[in-house]
Amino acid sequence: MSDTLSYESSGVDYDQLDAFKRACQGAARTTAPLLAAHGYSEPANTRGESCYLIEAADHYLAHVEEGLGTKNLVADAVYAKQGLNFYREIAIDTVATIVNDLVTCGALPISVAMHAAVGDSAWFADSARMQALVDGWAEGCRQAHAVWGGGETPTLKSIVNESAIVLAGSAIGRIAPKSLRITGEVREGDRILFLASSGVQTNGLSLCRLIADQLPKGYATPLADFVPTAGSSEGQSYGEALLAPSVIYVNFVAECQRRGLPLNYVAHVTGHGWRKLMRLEEPFVYEITEPREPLPVFQFLEKAGPISRRELYATYNMGVGFAAYVAPEYTEAVLAAARETGYDAWLAGTVKKEGTRKAVEIPSLGLSYEADTLALR
Amino acid sequence: MSDTLSYESSGVDYDQLDAFKRACQGAARTTAPLLAAHGYSEPANTRGESCYLIEAADHYLAHVEEGLGTKNLVADAVYAKQGLNFYREIAIDTVATIVNDLVTCGALPISVAMHAAVGDSAWFADSARMQALVDGWAEGCRQAHAVWGGGETPTLKSIVNESAIVLAGSAIGRIAPKSLRITGEVREGDRILFLASSGVQTNGLSLCRLIADQLPKGYATPLADFVPTAGSSEGQSYGEALLAPSVIYVNFVAECQRRGLPLNYVAHVTGHGWRKLMRLEEPFVYEITEPREPLPVFQFLEKAGPISRRELYATYNMGVGFAAYVAPEYTEAVLAAARETGYDAWLAGTVKKEGTRKAVEIPSLGLSYEADTLALR
Repeated sequence: MSDTLSYESSGVDYDQLDAFKRACQGAARTTAPLLAAHGYSEPANTRGESCYLIEAADHYLAHVEEGLGTKNLVADAVYAKQGLNFYREIAIDTVATIVNDLVTCGALPISVAMHAAVGDSAWFADSARMQALVDGWAEGCRQAHAVWGGGETPTLKSIVNESAIVLAGSAIGRIAPKSLRITGEVREGDRILFLASSGVQTNGLSLCRLIADQLPKGYATPLADFVPTAGSSEGQSYGEALLAPSVIYVNFVAECQRRGLPLNYVAHVTGHGWRKLMRLEEPFVYEITEPREPLPVFQFLEKAGPISRRELYATYNMGVGFAAYVAPEYTEAVLAAARETGYDAWLAGTVKKEGTRKAVEIPSLGLSYEADTLALR
Repeated sequence: MSDTLSYESSGVDYDQLDAFKRACQGAARTTAPLLAAHGYSEPANTRGESCYLIEAADHYLAHVEEGLGTKNLVADAVYAKQGLNFYREIAIDTVATIVNDLVTCGALPISVAMHAAVGDSAWFADSARMQALVDGWAEGCRQAHAVWGGGETPTLKSIVNESAIVLAGSAIGRIAPKSLRITGEVREGDRILFLASSGVQTNGLSLCRLIADQLPKGYATPLADFVPTAGSSEGQSYGEALLAPSVIYVNFVAECQRRGLPLNYVAHVTGHGWRKLMRLEEPFVYEITEPREPLPVFQFLEKAGPISRRELYATYNMGVGFAAYVAPEYTEAVLAAARETGYDAWLAGTVKKEGTRKAVEIPSLGLSYEADTLALR
């Protein structure tokens, strides 16, 4: 066993999950003919993408069901030990994880529904926490320009732990005209633009929790204990840094559509970290020449874990929540669209062709990930 | 304390949940103006209904997020003790709970997504159970004439109990032309048609589990131990009877639409039992003159609990999974549409007007429920 931590050491067995996902996808495919009676069909290549699409004559509908994962356990611990209520941020995170997946196909979210399952209805007796969750969900919807379209809030005694909540939800989106669909038509020479994240956002939290357990001060550990240079973050604790709410990227995609700027592909950088950049089936080599200095929270993780740099970039978003692949001539216009709608965006790299090789390369960090490190679809 | 069991005795505190639901609905309403930019608006009276609707010039879109509740705990116990795998049925139940809510507004489901969260990915290592869940979900989609549009299957260690699974999901539906919307325009004299359920379906399971805990043979108790007349169900155990898969009512609504038969209102009879029949805001008295003899599983619950008859009809569907309210002249045609698509349906009662009184009355059973026994919206 190595001295550094890996995501597998935090206890998620992807093999068993993947067998289930494959069985689901196989069975789900057999239901596609049922769309015909509704006037829809299933476009090629939508299965396995972050967003499920159905196609009509003049529009697509998009459907996403997504969950927050275990990030709220961090909020629970920080609330219990430091008295800081981050449930507004947690709700924004949940909406973000849903709508950021949805926009990857070019659909804009119209309606977002909440699924909040507790083990004990007493969860809602803490009205400050309850109200923060409600306010944050509405705020997430506003940032996504989507209506909050209902939801489900069951008490699942003996299924959900008594002190916990399962946060998830779904969204409906639409693409019209159909030409706005993001299809993944990436070409050699396309530029890779990065949009900044706010921190870990919603991925890799199991490992973050494991690290908190190892620290004498846990989530209350100041970032500065491991990252003396954490300048503007001075005084911020590890827990607070983890709980920075996710960035919602809907407005970036919407603004590019308004300005007529084609996005050849976009990736919501979540689980599997920068390996997600090679999500497309077609083999390309994605060369990242401007990876930026990692945010203090990632430097903290690297040192406190410790986590190897290779594992870090394979697990976390490392400051990049969303990537857009565009033809070179649109680079500046897309960056302008991002910046003028409030996103921190930069030109990060280039798509290259090396025969059948598929990989993500970050030469300045001495890192490269080959296709066999990512088995998603 | 009374000698009979009530739903509250099974540990669900609706007061705390309701405060949360009210806060959600209040905040959700503030997001409705966001629909305008998408070319949609929120119709009056959709909040608080079983299905959330948004309106465009020539169609409505419908969005539902729903969960199974705790029924899978019954399947887990029956699997562990009797070796009977009911996860196919459990998956059908989950799809049913989603799509039966969706069709109440007249929308037909197009896409259904799965949310299956486990506490430990080892849940999926039992391939027979895993495959049954997958097969059942696809079967539910086929019965609902909807595509299985993806989903989310997270491992939520420390949130979900290690041996358990949270089953939920969402659906997108559509109403076109808009005249097919079921609006709740019920009039005095309308007939109440009942469509049979298969048993408890997905409601009141907490109380069913409490009763199992009290029985020496638990779920393996033969129905005949309490219901000697349980003729065709002879040999069936309590657990097996509880796990009969829910009826999916989509095809009934679809067939009425195809035949041009207007449904003034429909109710998916779930939690709150027959009190759900007075879900409409406008005050009516719903007189049920043909309640039918309860299915053996309900007779079993009544005696094994014991549960008072008043509590039974206030909690369980009592053999009625779906109710349709139609103008008298359509009664026979709607019954024919139901029967010819395979549903067991009958004329059960009449809508009456008694000033501002809102109630459900079942004279032959000496039962009546006034409006104050139902606070749903």
